[in-house]
Amino acid sequence: MRVELINTGTELVLGDTVNTNAAWLGQRLAGLGLAVARQTVVPDGAVIAEVLAEAAARADIVVVTGGLGPTNDDITREVTAQLLGLELQESAAVMEHLDAYFRQRGRTVNAATRRQAMVPEGGVVLPNRQGTAPGLYLAAGLGTGRAADCHFFLLPGPPRELKPMMEQEVEPLLCRLVPAAGTRVVRYLKTTGLGESDLVDRIQADLEARADQGLELGYCLGRGDVDVRLAGPAEVVEEAAEWVRQRLGPLVFSEDRRVLEEVVVDLLRERGQWVATAESCTGGLIACRITDVSGASAVLGRGWVTYSNEAKTAELGVPADLISLHGAVSAEVVQAMAEGARQMADADHGLAVTGIAGPTGGTEEKPVGTVFVGLASRGEPVCSAKLFFPGARDRFKLLTSQAALDMLRRRLLGVSLNEI
Amino acid sequence: MRVELINTGTELVLGDTVNTNAAWLGQRLAGLGLAVARQTVVPDGAVIAEVLAEAAARADIVVVTGGLGPTNDDITREVTAQLLGLELQESAAVMEHLDAYFRQRGRTVNAATRRQAMVPEGGVVLPNRQGTAPGLYLAAGLGTGRAADCHFFLLPGPPRELKPMMEQEVEPLLCRLVPAAGTRVVRYLKTTGLGESDLVDRIQADLEARADQGLELGYCLGRGDVDVRLAGPAEVVEEAAEWVRQRLGPLVFSEDRRVLEEVVVDLLRERGQWVATAESCTGGLIACRITDVSGASAVLGRGWVTYSNEAKTAELGVPADLISLHGAVSAEVVQAMAEGARQMADADHGLAVTGIAGPTGGTEEKPVGTVFVGLASRGEPVCSAKLFFPGARDRFKLLTSQAALDMLRRRLLGVSLNEI
Repeated sequence: MRVELINTGTELVLGDTVNTNAAWLGQRLAGLGLAVARQTVVPDGAVIAEVLAEAAARADIVVVTGGLGPTNDDITREVTAQLLGLELQESAAVMEHLDAYFRQRGRTVNAATRRQAMVPEGGVVLPNRQGTAPGLYLAAGLGTGRAADCHFFLLPGPPRELKPMMEQEVEPLLCRLVPAAGTRVVRYLKTTGLGESDLVDRIQADLEARADQGLELGYCLGRGDVDVRLAGPAEVVEEAAEWVRQRLGPLVFSEDRRVLEEVVVDLLRERGQWVATAESCTGGLIACRITDVSGASAVLGRGWVTYSNEAKTAELGVPADLISLHGAVSAEVVQAMAEGARQMADADHGLAVTGIAGPTGGTEEKPVGTVFVGLASRGEPVCSAKLFFPGARDRFKLLTSQAALDMLRRRLLGVSLNEI
Repeated sequence: MRVELINTGTELVLGDTVNTNAAWLGQRLAGLGLAVARQTVVPDGAVIAEVLAEAAARADIVVVTGGLGPTNDDITREVTAQLLGLELQESAAVMEHLDAYFRQRGRTVNAATRRQAMVPEGGVVLPNRQGTAPGLYLAAGLGTGRAADCHFFLLPGPPRELKPMMEQEVEPLLCRLVPAAGTRVVRYLKTTGLGESDLVDRIQADLEARADQGLELGYCLGRGDVDVRLAGPAEVVEEAAEWVRQRLGPLVFSEDRRVLEEVVVDLLRERGQWVATAESCTGGLIACRITDVSGASAVLGRGWVTYSNEAKTAELGVPADLISLHGAVSAEVVQAMAEGARQMADADHGLAVTGIAGPTGGTEEKPVGTVFVGLASRGEPVCSAKLFFPGARDRFKLLTSQAALDMLRRRLLGVSLNEI
């Protein structure tokens, strides 16, 4: 099965938006054993007709993103119907969804939005739970011409609409089209704590030797994580996964694609424990990540952003002389912050960070990128680690939050904080 | 001048690498008035020959990234020479660079790397200061066939090699090819507070009428923002921008691509004022966004994540009976949180949010997505707004943080909190 991907959007060719959809869809399709043979990006407007016809002439499956919205240059729906010689008909079900969507927001459906209810005859509507524009599936056999041999999936451009639609609607349909997709297995082992090249050094050679058994190996870089992707026949993949588990130990934090904050919240909930956060350089990112997880209110009651020294003293009870003696960015202060947060919130764990995000504020002894992470847990000695994440401010914040969450994860699992 | 971009790399179609090169090059080219008409991504290997010939048949300028490395499937150089009927010759200058590069690292040039010194006859070598593979420029007029009418730029795939080569070598060459590059202007007006379709309703028709003067209109959706993009001849763009400013008033928050948190931090710094945050449902996101801006320590000293009712009372002094009387998600409580945060931190502004992020916790009266945003400013009456952002949890948090930051922006500018 030859798959092509088309992304429409003027913002993509102008570079105003990075095309993360292409990467995400590429991964999902690869997971089903469908490697994208060609990906094409064009601006909004008439040119979509040209690339759609070309892709349909080469491919068995064409996935299109974008151009389903309410504006005049959103014409993916119309152009696909035209290519196949199909009439567009208003779908009562989609109109109902649109009506409900707008009613909930105290508005009514306008003419531009109403176009989103038009469906090429024989097309299958893919519900959009996050927005207005439904997706469409046009199975091979609909319409006329060479393009009628092709399966079309038309998906909305916004990632938060596209992703659930792909996972919940498109992938089950693809599994029926690609029977081999069922016997093939893909496993992701999410790791944190080692950079990509160190990770590769540790596992690559052994896993590559399994290529003749059909094992495909890949890595994806996430938000401070590296995922090891293993694909191929089920037995080979399971055996390789077990080897990776042994080799990497506690570096592997998730095998079901849960991100680190989900793993931490789940561990806390299982134990009925609470955490409080005290953040300087991350400015709330750790609490924000924890509260990204539904149900976080059962594990986090309060947190502090103590950016200034006064805040560390007033809110967390960090002695002012401790700060003047060791500096705000020090093991002593991060430990006092962690213990202070834990006690103030009467929580089981206090998690704290203090560091120099930059670009200013570094010294020779403590350059930009220096950070201390501290953890105080009820009945355990307070501990801390000094880390160094030079680079851009947002990356620094992300990696620091990742290290802090991982410290808490290891404590909750009872594994060493240092074992890598 | 029609420009096409080709990115080669198996990691791109598999989605293991997000194609940031495409976005970055798109922006650089757009800055010269060269909108990419089509962008194509293919895996490493023979398929590059096919897409290169197709692009050359349509375009005046073809930019290719990747496939210049030492491995067997790096064949961009060979394929381009073949398309143009040009011989490859070893460049003494490139060999010298390679020798020096490897000597510096205590190694010698191997046969695979030596291929990188091969240059199609008449081709211009673009030096690579960050790696081994040089770029190549093949001017129109070299070789035979339709492709000989086309300018080719072959660039390395790694961003840290590509970017300096583009800026230092390619752009000066492009400026000679496109004399108009200097007279074209692109302007972005970033807006917040109106959805895309409402914004379109308000400005689209008037701006579209200016298309015959050469105005190009676009929108891009950001993190809760909608950017209006105006491009074309300088005078036409400036006139249109002024009209949009008048039409949208305080909805426009930035014209220099600064995001909302940057605008807010800058306004606070200019006034020498401080803000304190008190967040329930956003869990630290507002403070996190503010502290994403370098220099935030001059405007934010502390913030609270008060997820539980007890935390609202203990940390911010919100009376417990106020919470039991009105509920934690209420105008009364958000105002008390804002005023409490302001006073506790002795700040000029206290910014607070409380709401129901979902997916659980909604009631008929206050469904999931209900949120109150409150602002207490020194010497002003405390104010609040009730908003409704149904949808996914992360989207809810983002839009809530956006509304809160925008409330503060409007207060700092002295414009009405409600004018849209």
